[in-house]
Amino acid sequence: MWGGRFDAPPNELVARLGESVSYDRRMYAHDIRGSTAHARMLARTGIIPQADADAIVDGLAAVKAEIDAGTFVWSAALEDVHMNIESRLTGLIGAPGGRLHSGRSRNDQVATDMRLYLRDEAAEVVRLLRALQAALVTLAGQHTDTILPGFTHLQHAQPVVFGHVLLAYVEMLERDVGRLTDASRRMDVLPLGAGAMAGTTLPIDREWVAGELGFTGGLCRNSMDAVSDRDFVIELVSALSLMMMHLSRLSEDTVFWCSQEANWVELGDAFCTGSSIMPQKKNPDVCELTRGKAARVYGDLVTLLSLMKNLPLCYNRDMQEDKEPLFDALDTAKLVLAVYAPMVASIVVRKERMHGAASDAALMATDLAEWLVRQGLPFRQAHHRVGALVGAAHRAGKGLEAFTLAELRECVPEATEECLGLWKPEASVAARDIVGGTAPAQVRAQVAFWKAQPWMAEGKE
Amino acid sequence: MWGGRFDAPPNELVARLGESVSYDRRMYAHDIRGSTAHARMLARTGIIPQADADAIVDGLAAVKAEIDAGTFVWSAALEDVHMNIESRLTGLIGAPGGRLHSGRSRNDQVATDMRLYLRDEAAEVVRLLRALQAALVTLAGQHTDTILPGFTHLQHAQPVVFGHVLLAYVEMLERDVGRLTDASRRMDVLPLGAGAMAGTTLPIDREWVAGELGFTGGLCRNSMDAVSDRDFVIELVSALSLMMMHLSRLSEDTVFWCSQEANWVELGDAFCTGSSIMPQKKNPDVCELTRGKAARVYGDLVTLLSLMKNLPLCYNRDMQEDKEPLFDALDTAKLVLAVYAPMVASIVVRKERMHGAASDAALMATDLAEWLVRQGLPFRQAHHRVGALVGAAHRAGKGLEAFTLAELRECVPEATEECLGLWKPEASVAARDIVGGTAPAQVRAQVAFWKAQPWMAEGKE
Amino acid sequence: MWGGRFDAPPNELVARLGESVSYDRRMYAHDIRGSTAHARMLARTGIIPQADADAIVDGLAAVKAEIDAGTFVWSAALEDVHMNIESRLTGLIGAPGGRLHSGRSRNDQVATDMRLYLRDEAAEVVRLLRALQAALVTLAGQHTDTILPGFTHLQHAQPVVFGHVLLAYVEMLERDVGRLTDASRRMDVLPLGAGAMAGTTLPIDREWVAGELGFTGGLCRNSMDAVSDRDFVIELVSALSLMMMHLSRLSEDTVFWCSQEANWVELGDAFCTGSSIMPQKKNPDVCELTRGKAARVYGDLVTLLSLMKNLPLCYNRDMQEDKEPLFDALDTAKLVLAVYAPMVASIVVRKERMHGAASDAALMATDLAEWLVRQGLPFRQAHHRVGALVGAAHRAGKGLEAFTLAELRECVPEATEECLGLWKPEASVAARDIVGGTAPAQVRAQVAFWKAQPWMAEGKE
Amino acid sequence: MWGGRFDAPPNELVARLGESVSYDRRMYAHDIRGSTAHARMLARTGIIPQADADAIVDGLAAVKAEIDAGTFVWSAALEDVHMNIESRLTGLIGAPGGRLHSGRSRNDQVATDMRLYLRDEAAEVVRLLRALQAALVTLAGQHTDTILPGFTHLQHAQPVVFGHVLLAYVEMLERDVGRLTDASRRMDVLPLGAGAMAGTTLPIDREWVAGELGFTGGLCRNSMDAVSDRDFVIELVSALSLMMMHLSRLSEDTVFWCSQEANWVELGDAFCTGSSIMPQKKNPDVCELTRGKAARVYGDLVTLLSLMKNLPLCYNRDMQEDKEPLFDALDTAKLVLAVYAPMVASIVVRKERMHGAASDAALMATDLAEWLVRQGLPFRQAHHRVGALVGAAHRAGKGLEAFTLAELRECVPEATEECLGLWKPEASVAARDIVGGTAPAQVRAQVAFWKAQPWMAEGKE
Repeated sequence: MWGGRFDAPPNELVARLGESVSYDRRMYAHDIRGSTAHARMLARTGIIPQADADAIVDGLAAVKAEIDAGTFVWSAALEDVHMNIESRLTGLIGAPGGRLHSGRSRNDQVATDMRLYLRDEAAEVVRLLRALQAALVTLAGQHTDTILPGFTHLQHAQPVVFGHVLLAYVEMLERDVGRLTDASRRMDVLPLGAGAMAGTTLPIDREWVAGELGFTGGLCRNSMDAVSDRDFVIELVSALSLMMMHLSRLSEDTVFWCSQEANWVELGDAFCTGSSIMPQKKNPDVCELTRGKAARVYGDLVTLLSLMKNLPLCYNRDMQEDKEPLFDALDTAKLVLAVYAPMVASIVVRKERMHGAASDAALMATDLAEWLVRQGLPFRQAHHRVGALVGAAHRAGKGLEAFTLAELRECVPEATEECLGLWKPEASVAARDIVGGTAPAQVRAQVAFWKAQPWMAEGKE
Repeated sequence: MWGGRFDAPPNELVARLGESVSYDRRMYAHDIRGSTAHARMLARTGIIPQADADAIVDGLAAVKAEIDAGTFVWSAALEDVHMNIESRLTGLIGAPGGRLHSGRSRNDQVATDMRLYLRDEAAEVVRLLRALQAALVTLAGQHTDTILPGFTHLQHAQPVVFGHVLLAYVEMLERDVGRLTDASRRMDVLPLGAGAMAGTTLPIDREWVAGELGFTGGLCRNSMDAVSDRDFVIELVSALSLMMMHLSRLSEDTVFWCSQEANWVELGDAFCTGSSIMPQKKNPDVCELTRGKAARVYGDLVTLLSLMKNLPLCYNRDMQEDKEPLFDALDTAKLVLAVYAPMVASIVVRKERMHGAASDAALMATDLAEWLVRQGLPFRQAHHRVGALVGAAHRAGKGLEAFTLAELRECVPEATEECLGLWKPEASVAARDIVGGTAPAQVRAQVAFWKAQPWMAEGKE
Repeated sequence: MWGGRFDAPPNELVARLGESVSYDRRMYAHDIRGSTAHARMLARTGIIPQADADAIVDGLAAVKAEIDAGTFVWSAALEDVHMNIESRLTGLIGAPGGRLHSGRSRNDQVATDMRLYLRDEAAEVVRLLRALQAALVTLAGQHTDTILPGFTHLQHAQPVVFGHVLLAYVEMLERDVGRLTDASRRMDVLPLGAGAMAGTTLPIDREWVAGELGFTGGLCRNSMDAVSDRDFVIELVSALSLMMMHLSRLSEDTVFWCSQEANWVELGDAFCTGSSIMPQKKNPDVCELTRGKAARVYGDLVTLLSLMKNLPLCYNRDMQEDKEPLFDALDTAKLVLAVYAPMVASIVVRKERMHGAASDAALMATDLAEWLVRQGLPFRQAHHRVGALVGAAHRAGKGLEAFTLAELRECVPEATEECLGLWKPEASVAARDIVGGTAPAQVRAQVAFWKAQPWMAEGKE
Repeated sequence: MWGGRFDAPPNELVARLGESVSYDRRMYAHDIRGSTAHARMLARTGIIPQADADAIVDGLAAVKAEIDAGTFVWSAALEDVHMNIESRLTGLIGAPGGRLHSGRSRNDQVATDMRLYLRDEAAEVVRLLRALQAALVTLAGQHTDTILPGFTHLQHAQPVVFGHVLLAYVEMLERDVGRLTDASRRMDVLPLGAGAMAGTTLPIDREWVAGELGFTGGLCRNSMDAVSDRDFVIELVSALSLMMMHLSRLSEDTVFWCSQEANWVELGDAFCTGSSIMPQKKNPDVCELTRGKAARVYGDLVTLLSLMKNLPLCYNRDMQEDKEPLFDALDTAKLVLAVYAPMVASIVVRKERMHGAASDAALMATDLAEWLVRQGLPFRQAHHRVGALVGAAHRAGKGLEAFTLAELRECVPEATEECLGLWKPEASVAARDIVGGTAPAQVRAQVAFWKAQPWMAEGKE
């Protein structure tokens, strides 16, 4: 493969250490797509004969058919997907195959393949994200009046409606879509033509190739940058890490909701497992695995960042290690998303238990404080009075709702009959009727907003 | 601060563990800006009297003046920047100060402060990045004909011009600017009004506040999301991590160029240090420290990702730990950038040594292979012939340039007189005259492209 | 400081980037201890006059007194703790001060200081760990009969006693002590004498210094290794990361126990905080902050690992960045441990609520399956029968304890009257009477084991 | 598998998400070893009939033979290695197979398997480490007089001998062995008997099993700890991370030594690769891949740490994700070590080039300063004089060795004829004749020390 400089073949373990075909072969379709465009350009510019280019294009199609069909024989001795395909091409079409690699290097070739591949993969992740958002919006639409406690510090804070909780996650995923889209756009420039790192002396036509391969951002402007950097890989895995962080939180919440202590939702049996020893168990495994998978994607990100630190220009073999963490992060993200959407759809909500938990009048303490503000009291003073009331209730071992108006007035002299109506969670959520608030009317408006998104329609078909 | 529920003050060590004012006070101007807008809105909506709002606005200005002047007395017992300012405000203006916190919580307040703060910080980082790009472009403009070896695997690959190397880094930094800008835009929505997590029962006007504070993206649409997520912090630190990765590579290259072995550039004395024991040393400390600082920003990113994983909605106190890594990453990035631009400007280039290193004819081996392609040989065959030639040269212990045409033809029968002219690095770089290639003409065009950017003009003033 | 090679002083920002005295001055006592021993050795070996050594030793003591008293003036221009102290020493004693740095470099000096410092710090962390273990053992001793549900997958699994839960954490911390001790032992070798990296031409006596400074492991055997590596720093921070991981889990459990849903324990008011807006809140902040602090120590570890990757031998300035993450990890670990022990002591346990949660007969399903095994049934068959029983109960919407013997026999034909006694959690825990099991007798034995440890006695004084 | 509680089988994607048999099957031999001991114990204690135990033991041996032979059919539907083996066992021997799982759970079973497996793997890593140390010692023994520049900051510092450089790495690897050994010892306690987390009600004999399986540390003392923690996994991967950090540094050094700029060593062809486009290239791929692989092991460590953070007791399904990073770290470490030892043996050293680089008299500047100390000058003064000399030489553009004694005395009045002899690197290294120094005599003594280690003998066979 490398010609006359070498006296000895690679040590067998070195070959094992260095091969990448066991994992980079998943990019075969993109490699062939890139090579096809490259071959056509080589003919257009007169670098190789048109007939040879035609033979190459047909040969590459034949190779692709073999790989699609599972009949292709991969060889670790040929190191990577690129050499495997080129070698088979030459096996199929003979001498013209040897013309394909004119004016390019594996360095710009792999950079091109990865961008083509990632463009597709990012789109697929976005599609799966949309499906999960759709499942959350649908469930939210069914629970715009379902009240449960909202938490801070895992302590009951104020009542909210369950649809509001679910839409919070829709918002997070929306930003994840944005990050993936930005990353995808930023990497959408063609490296091919950068050669090993200095460009080529052959009169190639990079613009034509960029157009042919649909690179909307045009050309990498600097050959050394084109083959040296993997920031586009890291940016994508960073976006996936954030997405997994979001899913880890939804999973944590769901695990809590499924606990015997909360017992607010039940997941479909198909999304849980039992125990080899405890027959009563039904475990929210998907949620737990999702949390665990988030750790995995984090590790992939750290690998990529550590990998690229301190590397001199341009290509270094270390960079071959970019692929496995990248692929792992993508596979993980896609699998988790694919499972998550139907799991969300399987959720059965125990409204009464949620409502019961939200009915402790202490959750409405802020409502009383804000009522006092509406009567003209400074908030700090209002907070102080209600604090005293809560303290009195705590010491008396009874709930706020058990206080008579007279008792209430001992701590809160301004209180009126109206205050006794503040302890209902329905009143509390309804009163939070501002943009972004948890009032059912607001949440219904948000559900409508999301349902009007074009991708929601897709989910429905 | 919290009213009647508590019987005991915080344990002293708990207070130390929990205080944040020692580091979050840097956000005081943004906190005051947010509070000022909030107070005005409270009056506009009739929630508090206009006179009280006026008193608050004036009082906040007075507090800011004290902090600006360094006369403000910070108290760790008041936990954070928010309570310190509110407490002093009330000290200055009395009862109206107690009205400021109406309709908000520290949860939405801190989320607002951070976004305001980060918007400014991101802009500052971009400004510093532009200055570094300008320094690199300026140096590149002086070295569009300065030839040195380009490397892959830290082995000489092909000759390139030094300006091309420098512009590769300009490209990387350009993408860093893009990522920072995207992150900045994505976070530019107002969380204020989300309250503790459910919104507020008071009739606040969030749109007005968003306009007043210049949030171009409008409002956070979901109160629980608004106070729960820190993805915007992580996205920013992720962008900074990539930027530091790029700088670590430029540093690695520079350290190598400064080595006795290469001896291609010399940094200004002001950017180096000596040794307490070896009088002859001149060390490229800034480059080394930059590499080290990249590790630090990586650690900040890992802290933030680990921090947010598995947290239930909404706010949890863990999230207080978001600030120190964020501030550390920003401070680090800004300091490194500020030092780097003048250091680049101080670089003295040893052109002859660079040229000497690039003059080994072996670096032009690909040129001969591509010459053969131009004569009609398939590339693989061409590569094979040149490989044989290189092997022969290696075994003979002499350079390719020492081969006579007759000797050349033993390995490369197609060779002509023209081939003997391929061994000049000047010819080699000039021949790579495609978009993105290292030909001086191309590099000059790239320098012109960059010099036409509006931010280059700024650097010149 | 570096003599005649330099024409320009450091750029001001470079000085800020490069100074370490703002954080490494905490090692002043260890630096002085090392310098004192070095000076004595220099005199013993005749490298410097005894009188000068005496002056140095006295001068260093005077410097230490100034620093202890807070009157020492630190100078960032002198870069680090070493030069600050040496400079002041020479200021105090004149010419003899200039002899101190004979036969050493800052490279071996700082490696020595760090080991001396870390030896002390590791011992302090172990002391704090012991105090936390003692608090846990003490609480465990009070709850060897307090039954609560044990969890897997955050689902009720089997009843356990609370003391057993607490002792699980004592075990984890015991391994943390082991790791810290191993790390401390492994680093206990003297680097001083390695010089800049090659040793020195002066006839120093390293063995004597090692003895004087109490390095039980003797000498670093290789000067290049001695000044190059920071694995000892990373090993220590790795041990601290594991410790913080353990504390994050105890914190997670405690936060759950404090939730309204579980409501099993209450923390002392001194270890909680309230809300600026919700007067009823009492939040387990210490636990949450501890989880957050774990993320911080993780970040420190990643910084250190990334820092050292790919560094050529020997010392590189990047390595200066080892100190801040190290100090941060130590400070964090010590503060968290110091708060945690008294917080554990403040825990009030709600036994009845724990017991109530553990009384669902489904938690005893495994007990019935194992009862069947004792009657001779293969376990898989037993598990299957009890599974059918649990399924029947689930469908009937009633608890296992509500089944009559006749009903029980429909799923479990082998059942006898004895089975109806299996549903008591007291019976269940008592039956797990094997080494390591949760039977109160076993837990009492474990408490006794721990109470017999020498460090428990210390905790009592 | 889980009995009557479930109405629906797992969703297909859930099964894919949750299966572990595709990677945990590598522990089959250890799983069978553990099950065999467990079965014997069940018979000894009378929990199951002896005949059934005998059938189980024989059946397990048959299963192992099938797996060894590659004829075993793994089923993802059976989730993991444990259920695959048990299921096949029951297929082979019928009803008695259903008795194997008495008194244990998959939770304690997998914890046992992992410890058995890791004990073996750690021993294998140590064996490979010893082989690499042996290769380094052997090469060092050949180069106790081969002089090259020692570096700090990638700047020439002082001459050292090449053997000294190599032994620095032997020292680092020695500490890696120590960490692996400590980790291995600490995990060598038996979890089996912990059951799902509370122990078992069956009268099992844990001590007997511990003895049978060779757990030198005895029993896990607490059942909840036994099944909850994975600190032993993290500790091991942390030790591997440090080892990979060390190898990344050796690789970085080697890549530099192989550069055209240094050109000090050449690696065997079998450990390098060429280029698909540049026929002259010979790239040190193994070194580069090793650096990249270090990043990978770092990522594995971060995954594991993130994974375990904030998990409540006891087992959570997240923990299944511990295996892939662990296995990846082990496989990576073993492969890299296996390649590295023969690569070191293949190194050809270019002594003359090394010596030439070390012959610049500036590298001996410290020698002159220390010579002045021996004449009685304080070191700081000596350093200052030599600094002035170096500055003068720099300005004059000539080497120190070109100075006449008279010229020398202009900067260094104390200089004598003897000083002119200091510029030889041979003299310089010979003079560093202290323990740990680079004097050939010292290095020879160190080589002898290492060659006397028992594991060196093994390497020789």
